[in-house]
Amino acid sequence: MDTPTGRVHNPYTLPTWDDVPMVESVVQYFSLPTLLIGDCDVAALGEYWAGAGRGYSSMLYLTFGTGIGGAIVSGGRLHRGVGQMASEPGHMVIDLHGPECYCGAHGCFEQLAAAPAIARFARERASPAMLALAGGEIERITAETVGRAAEQGDLVAGALIEQTAFYIGVGLANLMNILAPEVVVLGGGVMGSWPLFEPHVWKTLMARGRMMPFERIKIEPAQLRLNAGVTGAARAIFDHLEGRL
Amino acid sequence: MDTPTGRVHNPYTLPTWDDVPMVESVVQYFSLPTLLIGDCDVAALGEYWAGAGRGYSSMLYLTFGTGIGGAIVSGGRLHRGVGQMASEPGHMVIDLHGPECYCGAHGCFEQLAAAPAIARFARERASPAMLALAGGEIERITAETVGRAAEQGDLVAGALIEQTAFYIGVGLANLMNILAPEVVVLGGGVMGSWPLFEPHVWKTLMARGRMMPFERIKIEPAQLRLNAGVTGAARAIFDHLEGRL
Repeated sequence: MDTPTGRVHNPYTLPTWDDVPMVESVVQYFSLPTLLIGDCDVAALGEYWAGAGRGYSSMLYLTFGTGIGGAIVSGGRLHRGVGQMASEPGHMVIDLHGPECYCGAHGCFEQLAAAPAIARFARERASPAMLALAGGEIERITAETVGRAAEQGDLVAGALIEQTAFYIGVGLANLMNILAPEVVVLGGGVMGSWPLFEPHVWKTLMARGRMMPFERIKIEPAQLRLNAGVTGAARAIFDHLEGRL
Repeated sequence: MDTPTGRVHNPYTLPTWDDVPMVESVVQYFSLPTLLIGDCDVAALGEYWAGAGRGYSSMLYLTFGTGIGGAIVSGGRLHRGVGQMASEPGHMVIDLHGPECYCGAHGCFEQLAAAPAIARFARERASPAMLALAGGEIERITAETVGRAAEQGDLVAGALIEQTAFYIGVGLANLMNILAPEVVVLGGGVMGSWPLFEPHVWKTLMARGRMMPFERIKIEPAQLRLNAGVTGAARAIFDHLEGRL
């Protein structure tokens, strides 16, 4: 997003939305002052205002879906960074020898722990239970298939959950070491399976927490689901009017 | 540091400073209100107030020495995090298969790019030029030896500089993806050789900058050197009195 011009650029994940005059189009239709802000930023503001982040001074919001998005609240304000580009935690490298990413690096967090990565690992070692849930077609196995098979007690799916939880734990440990937020709020489709991941994520965190008291950081699932964005968009207007955004 | 009690805990890197009543001792001697704040945090405040970070709204300060320390400024304020623990960027894992760290993880940033890591790699492949600079004793080779040998044109030292710059670039790319700070200020002894690292660091950044316009982020060497801490300590008092810290 280019905030000063109100244009959206996204040749990678939304090719038909490359160089779209977003603010101009909305203003033409509604004739109202219009603020351009990313979907992950508003979801984070929604959770901070009225969801799992309420009452904390600092928050890290992460969303696990087709990628891993994020937003940071510091001192009660959204941290936006140069060109309002923060945050892209999905492109944090955690394994230099890991799979290649479209960003140009190898071993990015989202290449190891987002939904397409879980599906990719699952297709490489599909169990009969996962195949049955996917109607017998290996290409139809998704991250959701893995979660459902694990809930049914499938051991291969359980091992995939444990592997994903390990990568989530490594990524969270990095972000906690950098930001030490009071709370980490986890959203996105993958986090529908949070109870499956939770014990393994904490095991990974506790094995590498000698420098930072990870146990003092809360980890909470997001609460507002599909309403997070619209709630946060309302909050963004107040924050903007009051000079906090 | 435990700010509420004013005590310092550090069994790992300063064993004789474990559980020291820092604030109490200073107050006994000076009978003045006393604020406990980390050395890296005050150095960052110094650079932000009167050094390389002046005039920016957000800053990432990193110091490369025996470890890699860091501090974050967001919206003109120091980001402190839970228990004032932020930031420990040195314990960000960038290579899951990398060397073991005392924090419990493998492949931490500082195990690959801080001064002891450079010295460790250099001792494994010491060149005649490096050995001569170290008085013929392989254990006396330090990160500084590598810098000096590279400046004299030693090819092995040059390759070590390039390797270190690659790891610095990977770590910086991660932190830029997460924070998108307007400026990154680099301090610490290793950064005395910044002109040797700079072109290779930018090459690494540019190869992985498709999601984040890294070129819009300034990278500046620190300016205040040994005065950064005391300057920032003064600023911390003003920030505290004005409710910003």
